[in-house]
Amino acid sequence: MIKSLSLHSESIIIDGLNVSVWDEDVFNRLKNGGVTAVNATIVCWENFREAISNIEKWNEKFESFKDLIMQVKTIEDIRGAKSENKVGIVLGFQNATPIEDDINLIRIFHDLGVRIIQLTYQDRNYIGDGCWESKDAGLSEFGCRVVKEMNRQGILIDLSHASEKTSMEAIEASKDPVAFTHANPKSIVDNPRNKSDEQLLALAEKGGVIGATLYPPLLVGGVYLRGLS
Amino acid sequence: MIKSLSLHSESIIIDGLNVSVWDEDVFNRLKNGGVTAVNATIVCWENFREAISNIEKWNEKFESFKDLIMQVKTIEDIRGAKSENKVGIVLGFQNATPIEDDINLIRIFHDLGVRIIQLTYQDRNYIGDGCWESKDAGLSEFGCRVVKEMNRQGILIDLSHASEKTSMEAIEASKDPVAFTHANPKSIVDNPRNKSDEQLLALAEKGGVIGATLYPPLLVGGVYLRGLS
Repeated sequence: MIKSLSLHSESIIIDGLNVSVWDEDVFNRLKNGGVTAVNATIVCWENFREAISNIEKWNEKFESFKDLIMQVKTIEDIRGAKSENKVGIVLGFQNATPIEDDINLIRIFHDLGVRIIQLTYQDRNYIGDGCWESKDAGLSEFGCRVVKEMNRQGILIDLSHASEKTSMEAIEASKDPVAFTHANPKSIVDNPRNKSDEQLLALAEKGGVIGATLYPPLLVGGVYLRGLS
Repeated sequence: MIKSLSLHSESIIIDGLNVSVWDEDVFNRLKNGGVTAVNATIVCWENFREAISNIEKWNEKFESFKDLIMQVKTIEDIRGAKSENKVGIVLGFQNATPIEDDINLIRIFHDLGVRIIQLTYQDRNYIGDGCWESKDAGLSEFGCRVVKEMNRQGILIDLSHASEKTSMEAIEASKDPVAFTHANPKSIVDNPRNKSDEQLLALAEKGGVIGATLYPPLLVGGVYLRGLS
């Protein structure tokens, strides 16, 4: 297990989602921990212009830490990062708010290197409902168009914080596999952020991927642990 | 001469700047006229968000007319357009207003494929003075930084509508050749939009390029012709 984390290993190890205060220390820890590439959250609640500013800041990081990290946009780039002994950074949104009401912004973000977008983050947005909405109406009409356009552009659909219905409808609507980049089974810990067996099976049938999360409230005994922290 | 305009010619023919109501007819005329690539104006007075909207519209055109045109971002792309018998489209701004006060937007636009930016358009902006300003203070401090950043990103500096002083200072500040994509010699027609011998010589010494313009007021007898049109 430790060997598989070694930088000398042939394995590709992806950190499915990481929210950090990104600095040299974090990049070094990822590198020393054997992470090949990481889905780096650059958006949670931002609008279009704010997301652009965050991309600008990452462009500066890519220059300042060019010996440690590199932006990756393709599978080939991820392999390239591995061979150059750098941590690959996949720019990812945890919310689709930067798209605002303009479907063509999906391509703009694709062209700027964004490769993972979560449709909803906890609450309702123009696309669908989040997992903490009390009423769950699933995908909107706009949301259905967004799923198609993300498929077309080649951006991974992340449903980690989506509601049950939004998840099920997006899995159904998407022609490509989708992901729960960070969630656990609801059958183990019954939290709205965790995923029902139905969602997990539907995701798997579509060829999707689930990344387990270590966020304490989503783990067994998590509330207790959270109370301690 | 006519032969050099033939599509079968080996020549690369660049339309230095074109402002059109872009449609299939215009694209066909460029193609049939033997134009290899064109600097297509997508901005005159727009701010950041408006410029993004214009890029979105061009992305749609690149899809709708993919048998006729293709976006070109490199010399190699221009040769590729030629060999595919398509008109290469270079996205160009006639004004730097989309950069607003944020130098990092230059890279954002570069990453979206913009390859030519005119520093000023007639009037003063944050970067410098245009050719119709009565007081000519040349480049601002921000303007000097913009020149450096455009060099770094690989975006051609166009000075066609810049004031005398802004032009001279930008030619001096730029490490790369710059262009007057559309202007004529002031010694022939004395119009603020035309270029003094001093500017023309400074541009040439730096290895820059000038594209003659057929805009009537900038030609001999132009005012008279304009009166007729």
